[in-house]
Amino acid sequence: MITKEQVAKDYKLIQDEICSALEQCDGKAHFEEELWDREGGGGGRTRVIQNGNIFEKGGVNFSAVHGHLPQTMKKALNVDQNEFFATGVSIVIHPNHPMVPIIHMNIRYFEMPGSEVKWFGGGIDLTPHYVFEDDAKYFHTKLKTVCDSYHHDFYHRFKLWADDYFFIKHRNETRGIGGIFYDRLTATDELSWQQVFEFSKAVGRSFAPVYTELVNRNRDKDFNELNQLWQYQRRSRYAEFNLVYDAGTKFGLETNGRIESILMSLPPTAKWVYNFHPEPNSEEEKTLGLLKKGINWV
Amino acid sequence: MITKEQVAKDYKLIQDEICSALEQCDGKAHFEEELWDREGGGGGRTRVIQNGNIFEKGGVNFSAVHGHLPQTMKKALNVDQNEFFATGVSIVIHPNHPMVPIIHMNIRYFEMPGSEVKWFGGGIDLTPHYVFEDDAKYFHTKLKTVCDSYHHDFYHRFKLWADDYFFIKHRNETRGIGGIFYDRLTATDELSWQQVFEFSKAVGRSFAPVYTELVNRNRDKDFNELNQLWQYQRRSRYAEFNLVYDAGTKFGLETNGRIESILMSLPPTAKWVYNFHPEPNSEEEKTLGLLKKGINWV
Repeated sequence: MITKEQVAKDYKLIQDEICSALEQCDGKAHFEEELWDREGGGGGRTRVIQNGNIFEKGGVNFSAVHGHLPQTMKKALNVDQNEFFATGVSIVIHPNHPMVPIIHMNIRYFEMPGSEVKWFGGGIDLTPHYVFEDDAKYFHTKLKTVCDSYHHDFYHRFKLWADDYFFIKHRNETRGIGGIFYDRLTATDELSWQQVFEFSKAVGRSFAPVYTELVNRNRDKDFNELNQLWQYQRRSRYAEFNLVYDAGTKFGLETNGRIESILMSLPPTAKWVYNFHPEPNSEEEKTLGLLKKGINWV
Repeated sequence: MITKEQVAKDYKLIQDEICSALEQCDGKAHFEEELWDREGGGGGRTRVIQNGNIFEKGGVNFSAVHGHLPQTMKKALNVDQNEFFATGVSIVIHPNHPMVPIIHMNIRYFEMPGSEVKWFGGGIDLTPHYVFEDDAKYFHTKLKTVCDSYHHDFYHRFKLWADDYFFIKHRNETRGIGGIFYDRLTATDELSWQQVFEFSKAVGRSFAPVYTELVNRNRDKDFNELNQLWQYQRRSRYAEFNLVYDAGTKFGLETNGRIESILMSLPPTAKWVYNFHPEPNSEEEKTLGLLKKGINWV
């Protein structure tokens, strides 16, 4: 049987591994750690990297919180019990370089102690400021490989889920090129709890090698002021998604989580330019054309 | 009897007057106008000023829309009918200069044609990047004068309402120094529809002289890079409020309004710095200490 303590312990290790790999990739900046306690129970280990060679602002957060669920969250989660436990690793990285993509990864475990209610959730998705088709193909192929090791259906299901989830309805565009997203994953006849847990860790451990590869492919490319302005505008869409739609952000705000840890996902600099339309046939316009649901990248 | 056409016509005039006054105050930039139609009925006249001497990005929008209310909005407004008409003037100005405040003004009229349901709403509130007590006192005193001409109770009630409305719960700070906010204002034994309508227009017409005075008091002050960084951080709080809490933004997003007009309120450049704490006894810290509910500025 997998205990919640075991999940939290392994997630912490994954946080450590990822921070080491990202520091090595950056070559300059180091993570600063902040330990925090949650008033209602539990706490976390927030780690933030800033002003690096590559990473302008990034957070790799671990938390394990417990306590009473507010009424609004009980309703949203469709559960009856009061006590909850939730642990996870959550990452958002905003690179300096407009050709290096923003990335988000999350693995999480939720249970209501003393009941049957427990599940895993998570995913990885990529938000390039400029979509390069080779990179998109590489990214999705790697995620498919991880998924395929656990269930032949996972990539297909979780890719569609990411397309639906990371969608900015009021802009009619996806946040980026998607990836995988899953929630409430439990044991089935085909997959034991141990395997579901292993899948969760495999998603977490795929993050560092995949993102490092994408950084290294793009970090030495030239860019100009127009590219940077576009990057800042793409970041403003990222902020819109996180503040208007993101369920993790809402959960954090409604359970009185540590505000700086919840909102570390927001970009270092963002710009809202009124009524901006990219030039016809530009790289910016091409990128907008690829921020759509249902593209098969594999 | 006041018709909805009359309200829309007078609001349009107020939009014209305000745009002229702001262009004169800026001395360089001019408003660009975009006329738009709403698919479900009606439309608007969006006017945006950018990259001026004073105004980095500002919008003065008029709209008059009608049609069927979505189910979610009916519930939120607690009304039964389907048909609605709404007109208003809505303003947000982001100045270049960190010592010049951000301002927001809105006057609006809502009715459900063929029923008794109709009301006025609106308000003005100020968001200084740095709070200067003399300016805050001037601002609130002017609003009180407008209110007092119509009802002895208006300023008191609407000032409290603004304190509660313009509150960023997850930061435990107000968006700025408040002002006045009112909604669902109707005729009473004490005040006729004509007087309520006149009050709405008086609020709209107070905007230009009050804001011009605040601009002129501060436009020639010195500022440094630290002040600008602080300005960008205050703007990020403004974006958080508008995207997470603002009812007007929600109404716009849910009724499929013109997205560039709804989100013209978002700042040209904003920064999210992880875990920023102002220096003890600095002007920044003093400002944070004044972003609280319940301060009596008059």
